Amino acid sequence: MTSELRQRIYQQLASVELIDPHTHINPLDAGSHTLVDILGYHYYTELAHSAGMPREQIEDPAISAKEKVGRLIEGIGPIDNTIQYSWLIDICQRFFGFEGDRLDASNWEALFDSSEAQMADAGWSDEVLRRSNVKSVFLTNDFDDPLAGFDTAKYVPCLRTDDLVFHLGKPEVRQRLEAATKVSVGSWTELREAIGVLFEHFTTNNARACAISIPPSFAPEPVSDGRVETALDAVLKDGVNADESHLRALSHRIFWTLAEMCDQYELPFDLMIGVNRGVYPTGVFQGQDLYDSRVSLIQYQQLLNAFPRVTFPISVLASVTNQELASYAWIFPNVVTNGHWWYSNTPSIIERDAAHRLEAVPRTKQIGYYSDAYKLEFVAPKFDMYRKILAKVLEQYYVIDRSWSEERAVEFGTQVLRGNVETTFKIS
Amino acid sequence: MTSELRQRIYQQLASVELIDPHTHINPLDAGSHTLVDILGYHYYTELAHSAGMPREQIEDPAISAKEKVGRLIEGIGPIDNTIQYSWLIDICQRFFGFEGDRLDASNWEALFDSSEAQMADAGWSDEVLRRSNVKSVFLTNDFDDPLAGFDTAKYVPCLRTDDLVFHLGKPEVRQRLEAATKVSVGSWTELREAIGVLFEHFTTNNARACAISIPPSFAPEPVSDGRVETALDAVLKDGVNADESHLRALSHRIFWTLAEMCDQYELPFDLMIGVNRGVYPTGVFQGQDLYDSRVSLIQYQQLLNAFPRVTFPISVLASVTNQELASYAWIFPNVVTNGHWWYSNTPSIIERDAAHRLEAVPRTKQIGYYSDAYKLEFVAPKFDMYRKILAKVLEQYYVIDRSWSEERAVEFGTQVLRGNVETTFKIS
Amino acid sequence: MTSELRQRIYQQLASVELIDPHTHINPLDAGSHTLVDILGYHYYTELAHSAGMPREQIEDPAISAKEKVGRLIEGIGPIDNTIQYSWLIDICQRFFGFEGDRLDASNWEALFDSSEAQMADAGWSDEVLRRSNVKSVFLTNDFDDPLAGFDTAKYVPCLRTDDLVFHLGKPEVRQRLEAATKVSVGSWTELREAIGVLFEHFTTNNARACAISIPPSFAPEPVSDGRVETALDAVLKDGVNADESHLRALSHRIFWTLAEMCDQYELPFDLMIGVNRGVYPTGVFQGQDLYDSRVSLIQYQQLLNAFPRVTFPISVLASVTNQELASYAWIFPNVVTNGHWWYSNTPSIIERDAAHRLEAVPRTKQIGYYSDAYKLEFVAPKFDMYRKILAKVLEQYYVIDRSWSEERAVEFGTQVLRGNVETTFKIS
Repeated sequence: MTSELRQRIYQQLASVELIDPHTHINPLDAGSHTLVDILGYHYYTELAHSAGMPREQIEDPAISAKEKVGRLIEGIGPIDNTIQYSWLIDICQRFFGFEGDRLDASNWEALFDSSEAQMADAGWSDEVLRRSNVKSVFLTNDFDDPLAGFDTAKYVPCLRTDDLVFHLGKPEVRQRLEAATKVSVGSWTELREAIGVLFEHFTTNNARACAISIPPSFAPEPVSDGRVETALDAVLKDGVNADESHLRALSHRIFWTLAEMCDQYELPFDLMIGVNRGVYPTGVFQGQDLYDSRVSLIQYQQLLNAFPRVTFPISVLASVTNQELASYAWIFPNVVTNGHWWYSNTPSIIERDAAHRLEAVPRTKQIGYYSDAYKLEFVAPKFDMYRKILAKVLEQYYVIDRSWSEERAVEFGTQVLRGNVETTFKIS
Repeated sequence: MTSELRQRIYQQLASVELIDPHTHINPLDAGSHTLVDILGYHYYTELAHSAGMPREQIEDPAISAKEKVGRLIEGIGPIDNTIQYSWLIDICQRFFGFEGDRLDASNWEALFDSSEAQMADAGWSDEVLRRSNVKSVFLTNDFDDPLAGFDTAKYVPCLRTDDLVFHLGKPEVRQRLEAATKVSVGSWTELREAIGVLFEHFTTNNARACAISIPPSFAPEPVSDGRVETALDAVLKDGVNADESHLRALSHRIFWTLAEMCDQYELPFDLMIGVNRGVYPTGVFQGQDLYDSRVSLIQYQQLLNAFPRVTFPISVLASVTNQELASYAWIFPNVVTNGHWWYSNTPSIIERDAAHRLEAVPRTKQIGYYSDAYKLEFVAPKFDMYRKILAKVLEQYYVIDRSWSEERAVEFGTQVLRGNVETTFKIS
Repeated sequence: MTSELRQRIYQQLASVELIDPHTHINPLDAGSHTLVDILGYHYYTELAHSAGMPREQIEDPAISAKEKVGRLIEGIGPIDNTIQYSWLIDICQRFFGFEGDRLDASNWEALFDSSEAQMADAGWSDEVLRRSNVKSVFLTNDFDDPLAGFDTAKYVPCLRTDDLVFHLGKPEVRQRLEAATKVSVGSWTELREAIGVLFEHFTTNNARACAISIPPSFAPEPVSDGRVETALDAVLKDGVNADESHLRALSHRIFWTLAEMCDQYELPFDLMIGVNRGVYPTGVFQGQDLYDSRVSLIQYQQLLNAFPRVTFPISVLASVTNQELASYAWIFPNVVTNGHWWYSNTPSIIERDAAHRLEAVPRTKQIGYYSDAYKLEFVAPKFDMYRKILAKVLEQYYVIDRSWSEERAVEFGTQVLRGNVETTFKIS
C-alpha cells in the first residue's frame, strides 16, 4: 500500500547485508528450537501479562514448551495490535511458511510441530542468518564469559559491564571476577588490574565494544584514588549494605576506569541510558523494568570531555531524550547515535527519532539500528521494521521535501544501516 | 480533501454509538440554553483573553447572555485558527444550521436568537445526545453530590476526590464531608469511615469510577496510622496553615485510602496527572491552570504495585509523558491509557500520542477518548476531532505502513473508541 | 516532488516580503566577503569538527580565507546530509550561480573566486536583501553599542542583555557599562540608573526589543532593595568569585529591572530559554554550548504575572519544551511564541513544533521564524526552509485534515510569517 518510491528505496535497503551491532544472542545456542523460544520472548510474556494473564500461568515451571505456547496463544489476542506481535507473525511467515496474520487456537499447534522439525536441523542458525541477510551479530557477554567455542567473526564479543559498575557489592560478583581474572581483589590497585585482565581477554578474542546499561540517576564523575580505596574497603566489608556514598564512589570510579580501558584498548563504549530496574517486581521475567524519562546527557558532560579518543555509541530509552542525543552527537566528536532501544523501538517513535538524527547528525556518526534480539530469528523482523521506517523517512523528508535523488537517499540509508557499524566498531 | 480510504475508516468509526467516559456535564442541566453556554466555555474565554480581551470585559457580572456573546465575538477573531474554534463552528453547523465558517459581527446575533429558540425545547438534551450518537456520559460529581433527580444509566456518576485529598485543610470541605456522611470527623478512624460512606453512596448510585486530578509534584506513598493521626490532628487544629509535612502526610494517606476503597468497591481510579492550579491567578475562570511537564509515572510506582486489582485509567497533561504512560500500560496490568487531556487535546499532539499507544499497548487497555465537556453540545465535535485523527493514524500506520486490512483497522479503532470503555468501567 | 497544493501555498508564502526579527548581523559589515564568511559559520565548523576535523586545523590563525575554505571542504563530506549543509548549497545556488548539489575538491575553488568577485561589489548587502525579499533585519547589539553608522529602519537595534544579567561580576563588563552610560556604578541606585541610560539610548535609536539567552537552571524572582545592595557590594568586592547566592541575587534583580524597563519603554523582552554555555569547552568557536532539556516555563511564573504589560516573545531550545511554550502562550496574554531556535531549527522538529503552535495559540501571538543569522546570505535559505515546512503543515493539518480553503491557509501563514512581527515589535 506504500508508494512505489518508498518501495524502491526499501527494496534497495533490504538488499544490504547486515551486521547487527547489539544482541543478546547465545552463540552456542543462537537459533530457536521450538516456538516457545519465540513466544517466550519477554515482549510477548509481559504484554500478555499486562493484558491479563497471571504470571504464575506463564512461568509455571511444570509445563512443557508446547503447553506454554498453547497458554500464551490463549492470552495473546489482546496484543495483536502491537508492533511486537507483527514481529512474531513475520517470523512465522518468513521462516516457517505460516500464511495467516494471526496465531490462534485453530492454527498454532500445527505450526508448533512443523516449525520444530525445521529448527531441529543442525544448520538452522546459519540458515536463519542466511535468510535474514545477516553477516554477523554482536553479543552481550558477561565479564567472565570464556568466549570459547564459537566463531568470533560471526558472533562478535562485547564486554557487558553492568555487574562491575553496579553490583560489585555482591560477593558472588567479586568471586566471579576473581575466578575469571585470577586476581585477588583486596585493593583498588588489584581491582583495576583485574579489570585490565578482562579487557585483555576480550580484545584478544575479537571484542568490538564495551557496553553498559545505566539508570537515569547516574551522573558519573572522577573519583580520587584515596576516595575509591575508602569506598572499596567499605564495600568489601559491608557488601550491598555499604553506605550509599561508598557504593556510588566505587561505581563512579569503576565506570571511569572502564572508559580509560576503552581508551587504551581502542574499544567503543556503548552507553544505554535510562532504565530503572525492577519497577514492577512481580512482573514476568525481564518484564519488570521501566524508567523515569527525566534524564539528561548533561550528566555525561565530564565523561565526554575527559575521553576524547573514546567513541561513545549512545542509546536512550525514552524518545524525549532523543533530541539531546542528536545535539550531543552534533557537537561532541566522540558521541555516536545508536539504534532505537526497547521502549523507543516502535514505529512512530523510531520515525520521529530517526528523522531528527538523519537531518542533524553527521552521516558518519549514526548507527541506525540493532536488534537487541535474544534469538536469531528476531534479527530479521526487527531490522525489517526499521528499514521500512527508514525508507519512509528518506522518501518523505529527503526525496519529497528536500528534492534529493532516490540514489542519494539510498546511499545515505545504506551508510546508516551498515557502513557506520563497520567504521565505528572497526569491522574489516 | 482526505483520501477515500481514510474517509471510509472515518465513516465506520462515526457510526459507532459513543459512551463518553469523562465529562463535567451537570445532569440536571445538561444542554445549553443560549450561545453563552457555548462561548462561555473556558477555552474561548481564556483564548480570547490571551489574545487581548480584558478579563473584566469577559466576566462583567452586569451583562446579559446576549451582550456577553456579542463581546466575545468581538474578541474571538484572533483565535479562529485554533482547534477549539473549530469545535464552536462544528456545534453551530451541526446543531443550529449555521452555514459559515466564522462567527462575526455580521452573523452572530441571528444565530443567537434562532439557536436560543431551539435550545428552549424541553427535549433538547436528549436531542443533542441522539444527534451526537451518544448513549451515555460519565459525570464528575463532588463527593457530597446527592446523585438524585437523573437517570444514572444515561448520566453515569463518578466520584471526584480532589477536595478530599488536597483540600481537607479547609473547614468548609470538612463540613461538607460531615454533612454528606453524617460522620463527625475527629479522628483518622472516623475520616476513613466517612470516606467509606461516600463509596457506599456512589456505588449504590451506579458510580463507575473514582477520579482525581493531581499536580506534577505529587508522589504518593503509604503513611502509617500513627503518622496520619498526628497529621490529622494538626490539620484539624491549623487548617490550611498546618505544617506542609502534615498536610502532605494526610493527603497521601487519604489518597491511599481511596485506592483501598476502589479495590473494595471494584471501581477504576482515574488519575489525571500533571496540572498546576492557579499559575496565572488573574486569568479568567478556569483559565488559570498550567503545568510543569517535568513529571514521571515513576512517582506512582508504589501505588501501582500496592493495588494490583485496581484499574488505573491514567491521563497525562503533557505529551512528553505520553511515552511513559504507554510504557507503564505495556508493563503494569492495572494501568490503562485514558484519552487526550486538556493541553494535549489538540490534533497534532493526539496524532502522535495515539499513534504510539496504538502500536505499543495491548488493544484492550486503551480508552481512546473522552470529551471533558461541560455542556452536552461539545461531546460531538470533540469526539469527531478524535475520530478523524484515529482514522488518519489507522490509515497511515496500519493500512499503509503495516498492510492491515481496512476491516481490521476499523475493528481496532472501534474497540479503542467504545469497547474498552465498556470493559474498563463494567458497563453492560 | 511535493504536491501541487503544497507548492501553491509555498509560492504564495514566498512572495511575502520578510522582516527577520532576530539575527546577529553586523550592520556595518552585513554581507559576506568570501566563502569563508559562509563556511566559517559555526554550524559548519562544529559539524565538521564533530565528524572528525581537529579544531586546530579549523581555527589555525595562520591560514588564509581560501586555505581555510579548502580545509573545511575536505572535512565537510560527512555532513552533507544535514539541513545546515542544504543552507550552504542554497546560498551557493541562489547567490553565486552554483549548479551542483555538493561542494567538493572539484568545484569549490572556482566558486570561491567567482563569488569573491561578486561579493566585492559595494552594493552586495543590499543586493542580498533584495534577492532574499527581506525588508529589514533585527540585530543583537551589545549594551554598549553606539548604534551609529547604519540605517536603523533596515538594521533594527535590539538590546542584548546577557552580559548585564550574567556577567556583571567581571570588571570589564562594569567598565564597559560605565563607559557607555557615564554612570559610576557603586550602588544599586547607580546601577539601575545606568540600565535606564541604556534603554534611553536604545529606544532613541529605534530599538524594537530587549533580549537575553538564559540557562535552564534560571528561575527569576523579585529581590528586595536591601538584598540587592548587599549582593552588589559583594560582587563589586569579589567579582566572579563572590558567593553564588550574591551573584544570583544580583542577577535576578537586574533581570527584574530589565523587565521593568521594558514595561516603561514599551519594549518586548525576548527570552531565549535553555542554553548551557561551554558544555564542550574544547569545541570550536561557538560550537561549545549544549543544554539540559529539563526546564519548565513554570520557572517564569512570577515574572509573567508581575509584568502583564510587557510582551515576552519566548524561544525554547529543546522541542520538549514546545508544548509548554504553546500552552503558556495560550493562557498568558503576554507570552508570544517566537521562532525555532538553534538545536530545534531543523525540519522534523520545526514541523511538529509549528503544527502544535498553529493549532493551539491565538494566531496573533505567534512569530513564525527568525534566522539567527550572522551574515545576510543565511536569511534566505533559513526562511525558505521554514516556509516549506509551514506550507507542508498548512497543507496537511488545515487544508486536508480540517478542510480549510487554500486562501485561508495562506492568509494564516502570512500572518505568522510577517504580520505578527510587525504588530509584536510595533513596526510601522
